[in-house]
Amino acid sequence: MKKIAVFTSGGDAPGMNACIRAVVRGAIYHGLEVYGIRRGYNGMISGDIIPMNSQSVSNIVQLGGTVLKSARSKEFMTPEGRKKAYENLMAHGIEGLVAIGGNGTFTGAEVFFNEYQLPTVGCPGTIDNDLYGTDYTIGFDTAVNTSLEAIDKIRDTADSHDRVFFIEVMGRDSGYIAIQSGIGGGAEIVMVPETRTPLKKVVGTLKEGWTRKKTSSIIVVAEGDEEGHAAEIADKIKSQVGDKLDIRVTTLGHIQRGGSPTAYDRILASRMGLNAVEGLIKGEKNVMAGIINNEVVFTPFIDTIKKQKPIHEDLLRMVHILSI
Amino acid sequence: MKKIAVFTSGGDAPGMNACIRAVVRGAIYHGLEVYGIRRGYNGMISGDIIPMNSQSVSNIVQLGGTVLKSARSKEFMTPEGRKKAYENLMAHGIEGLVAIGGNGTFTGAEVFFNEYQLPTVGCPGTIDNDLYGTDYTIGFDTAVNTSLEAIDKIRDTADSHDRVFFIEVMGRDSGYIAIQSGIGGGAEIVMVPETRTPLKKVVGTLKEGWTRKKTSSIIVVAEGDEEGHAAEIADKIKSQVGDKLDIRVTTLGHIQRGGSPTAYDRILASRMGLNAVEGLIKGEKNVMAGIINNEVVFTPFIDTIKKQKPIHEDLLRMVHILSI
Amino acid sequence: MKKIAVFTSGGDAPGMNACIRAVVRGAIYHGLEVYGIRRGYNGMISGDIIPMNSQSVSNIVQLGGTVLKSARSKEFMTPEGRKKAYENLMAHGIEGLVAIGGNGTFTGAEVFFNEYQLPTVGCPGTIDNDLYGTDYTIGFDTAVNTSLEAIDKIRDTADSHDRVFFIEVMGRDSGYIAIQSGIGGGAEIVMVPETRTPLKKVVGTLKEGWTRKKTSSIIVVAEGDEEGHAAEIADKIKSQVGDKLDIRVTTLGHIQRGGSPTAYDRILASRMGLNAVEGLIKGEKNVMAGIINNEVVFTPFIDTIKKQKPIHEDLLRMVHILSI
Amino acid sequence: MKKIAVFTSGGDAPGMNACIRAVVRGAIYHGLEVYGIRRGYNGMISGDIIPMNSQSVSNIVQLGGTVLKSARSKEFMTPEGRKKAYENLMAHGIEGLVAIGGNGTFTGAEVFFNEYQLPTVGCPGTIDNDLYGTDYTIGFDTAVNTSLEAIDKIRDTADSHDRVFFIEVMGRDSGYIAIQSGIGGGAEIVMVPETRTPLKKVVGTLKEGWTRKKTSSIIVVAEGDEEGHAAEIADKIKSQVGDKLDIRVTTLGHIQRGGSPTAYDRILASRMGLNAVEGLIKGEKNVMAGIINNEVVFTPFIDTIKKQKPIHEDLLRMVHILSI
Repeated sequence: MKKIAVFTSGGDAPGMNACIRAVVRGAIYHGLEVYGIRRGYNGMISGDIIPMNSQSVSNIVQLGGTVLKSARSKEFMTPEGRKKAYENLMAHGIEGLVAIGGNGTFTGAEVFFNEYQLPTVGCPGTIDNDLYGTDYTIGFDTAVNTSLEAIDKIRDTADSHDRVFFIEVMGRDSGYIAIQSGIGGGAEIVMVPETRTPLKKVVGTLKEGWTRKKTSSIIVVAEGDEEGHAAEIADKIKSQVGDKLDIRVTTLGHIQRGGSPTAYDRILASRMGLNAVEGLIKGEKNVMAGIINNEVVFTPFIDTIKKQKPIHEDLLRMVHILSI
Repeated sequence: MKKIAVFTSGGDAPGMNACIRAVVRGAIYHGLEVYGIRRGYNGMISGDIIPMNSQSVSNIVQLGGTVLKSARSKEFMTPEGRKKAYENLMAHGIEGLVAIGGNGTFTGAEVFFNEYQLPTVGCPGTIDNDLYGTDYTIGFDTAVNTSLEAIDKIRDTADSHDRVFFIEVMGRDSGYIAIQSGIGGGAEIVMVPETRTPLKKVVGTLKEGWTRKKTSSIIVVAEGDEEGHAAEIADKIKSQVGDKLDIRVTTLGHIQRGGSPTAYDRILASRMGLNAVEGLIKGEKNVMAGIINNEVVFTPFIDTIKKQKPIHEDLLRMVHILSI
Repeated sequence: MKKIAVFTSGGDAPGMNACIRAVVRGAIYHGLEVYGIRRGYNGMISGDIIPMNSQSVSNIVQLGGTVLKSARSKEFMTPEGRKKAYENLMAHGIEGLVAIGGNGTFTGAEVFFNEYQLPTVGCPGTIDNDLYGTDYTIGFDTAVNTSLEAIDKIRDTADSHDRVFFIEVMGRDSGYIAIQSGIGGGAEIVMVPETRTPLKKVVGTLKEGWTRKKTSSIIVVAEGDEEGHAAEIADKIKSQVGDKLDIRVTTLGHIQRGGSPTAYDRILASRMGLNAVEGLIKGEKNVMAGIINNEVVFTPFIDTIKKQKPIHEDLLRMVHILSI
Repeated sequence: MKKIAVFTSGGDAPGMNACIRAVVRGAIYHGLEVYGIRRGYNGMISGDIIPMNSQSVSNIVQLGGTVLKSARSKEFMTPEGRKKAYENLMAHGIEGLVAIGGNGTFTGAEVFFNEYQLPTVGCPGTIDNDLYGTDYTIGFDTAVNTSLEAIDKIRDTADSHDRVFFIEVMGRDSGYIAIQSGIGGGAEIVMVPETRTPLKKVVGTLKEGWTRKKTSSIIVVAEGDEEGHAAEIADKIKSQVGDKLDIRVTTLGHIQRGGSPTAYDRILASRMGLNAVEGLIKGEKNVMAGIINNEVVFTPFIDTIKKQKPIHEDLLRMVHILSI
């Protein structure tokens, strides 16, 4: 293998730049030439492929977002799109790919590999931490800390006004951000898609706190909770408790995607980027380079997409114990 | 004057604790006894009035929110409520008040003073910076920096995805937060209640940027803009530009109220708290202790409520120049 | 077991409050009474032992430092001191202890247990991450992020002036903080006590970078490096490279001990505190409750003190690869 | 005037990039061509002069340091150096200069103007805030907030251990950073070059606090204090109070120079950059564009260098009152 290319695809995540840097410098260290593909699969199709050297990735380890830009590509879902992509890669002599992204990225990579057998190793980059085959994904730790800082700020005002706050965090199919930021932020309740939290129970907890003269409360809701968005849940609760409680709602939104990555994410991303390059060299293909129990583990793309990552039951239990 | 009391009222703002500390220690320095009234006018009515000493305000200068808690009081709007409040203050021998808050707080203080002539000096505490009689209000600088950090994070993801973001910040009647965080955050457009920004102009600016291959844009909207909330404005724009632009909306919400105050707010709040105490001692009453051009200025409550603080026209002009 | 007590000892670490909170609420959840001992072993000896309830630990999860205060105790090193401590604990009916701290704390706990057989479980709380028996210690992640933010700031000025910076971070016997903040901060070289980095090699790397027109460089030095403190190392380097390079030194110092804990530290601390209580209930004694590969592991105090925790060799290798 | 150039010189300060951006876009807005000179006067001498357009300054408003790099230039102190500089500027057709920097920068600009009459307007960029002719300088607000965050962190550990901390901040000839971060950080004492603080008084304050059972204290020392560096002062104090107090020292160092600028600094820098361009167009020369009481004021370079900016006496008085 002499030439590889790297790209970021799907939703961006803090730490993607640290990963790109590790891929580029790791490749150079091992004597490979390395290219960057801009805007994910779209750039592959349009031929937006640029040579990268050590300087290309100077001073980016601390930046949020992705210097290679990212996108979701409809055209790559068509055989024609993938054909063009393959031809462009061949024109550059590229023999291996590092794909940084999440579920959608790996779904595309899987299909592409089955058609063209171009060795591809993935790095899990998504703030949601919802990929099977790795303990943590790039961007998750930063997103949790961003949410936590927001919760800390909101608690200042919640306490000053004796209010109940419903705070919606990201996680369409996954409660990881909600649980971790909820425990870290001292939330009374955390509502996640993976388990049912009956509204009766929420009302009960709030009433009980109210009896104990606990006048402010934080409830963290993952956007994908089965009871609906935070605003809907808050409305239902209001209709049950009346105006005894002063209830407010905040949806944290896109701030969770950005920001300078934490130490954890920079190191994780650097390891994964390097592991992906060294994996390619050793002949890995059609797999994601995850880290489980501090060891590199290569998991077939098909498993990362299809298999369900279990939620931390013990953490959910902790939310309850720590809020008494 | 031997005994004074301090309270916070209305929406909380970062720096209120620094102000309380300065009132308490300033009072002690000048040989006064000092009380804290909890939950604003509500505590005055219910008699929730506690003696404070130097230790009561140790280690609070850095905290968001208010250790005396805050509230809006309906009962204080009634003559009966104010009578109870006055009797409670008399029972404690209180001869002067420091009221930390905004418009609503000073409206109440004005009425109360006219009925009972209890000397009261106000400290402007509101993140909105919408009070006449002072260049800046306690909490404004922190709120601007909080908004700015959020905008910085969102720009990471906006750039990575070539998106247009409408970001709504606080300011029901005032565009101060929007303008300052917009300039600081490199926004293309800032929409504020004080001036009309026709949607045509917004569409024009976006289209022009799109022609220049400027693919990401930030538009900061004050919540009180005459065109509606950010989400409504974004919908109108979408209907005009179609899907050429990938438009997203984020409402920053209550995070802007909390957080550890900036240096500016801690110092401003400390000065104002001390000025209020020294004002009371010198016989000031029914006025707010503001700072204009770095000098203490006492402005009658009635003016702080009625008079309109002009917006910085030159800053609005700068938004335009700096985004070319 | 009906009554337990918790204390913090040795150098404080961010997350200790989250751990105290988890011990207190975990104990209450399991039907135990719980006491707090102030100022570590000193408070045990002087009888500074206070009852704690759920409210005692409200709103502390986000605070740096320790609300129970900490100290190093000379008197506890004497049999007389420990006798007094034991008598005070007995006077309160305390049947189990949770000790939050590092090496020195567990050395004391080990001796105390051998003399009096009072069941004690430790929680690893030290920013240095130098304890055998756990992957990470409470406070380490926060200290690394604090160092990293400082390095990010210094790189701004290093780049603007084409300077070489030697940055000293904490870690008398351990290079964990140095390695992680070095990788995260994009350092060219990391010097740690566990391995020898010959000055010749440092000079070589700097000269080589200089040849490649790389004009700014960051070298992270753990305070316990065998070549001396950062200032000494910088002086030696200067004498070899002359004034071709503009070399500066910064020692980060005590800021690394403080600050609001990261999400990681709050969650780790919460888990460890709860694990310690549940360990005591199940009969654990004279052990530390660590977490290895995401599982609770109880390790005898004697091992946590005597056994050496190996450094991450692969991370040191990464520093080199990523700086090319 | 058709062509101008901008450069940064001397110590870098957060906000310089926002200022460069405002100069470049302000110039374009007013129909001027604009060049950037790299590494201050050195680049002027070596001809490192590059054309800049709107894109050159995209996405830099939030960055610390300076994208044009900075340096101190010995060669510019010689007539030969200045001659080369002038010839290079003439070769590019440059008719006006914007110089962003502090004392040294303006001293050079003054001499240069007197020799060659090339219109030059300065923007005050230095974290020290020690320039006559402006209320605040670019970078000062950020440096104060950086110091304050460090003090907040150190107070966590000071309180947990009942320690006295001497914290040295930047300011060789000026106590501005020390006073503002000291008030903001709740320091007991602030020592600055502008006034004498006898060590006896420091000892007295510490002893008195110790009597009142105040066990932790923060003393902020400007690096230029007449009693010496923080470490020396701490040693002298130790020799007088013995080991009754646990005294520690931290020197904040170069972290104060870097970091993303605060909202205040970004706006100040933007205004100043724009003012400088518009000043040049209107015929200003050999002056600094400062802001006093929110109005643009042009002050001759010679005054900004020679005249002493008075310290805020009322703030020093506040330190004392607020620490009782």
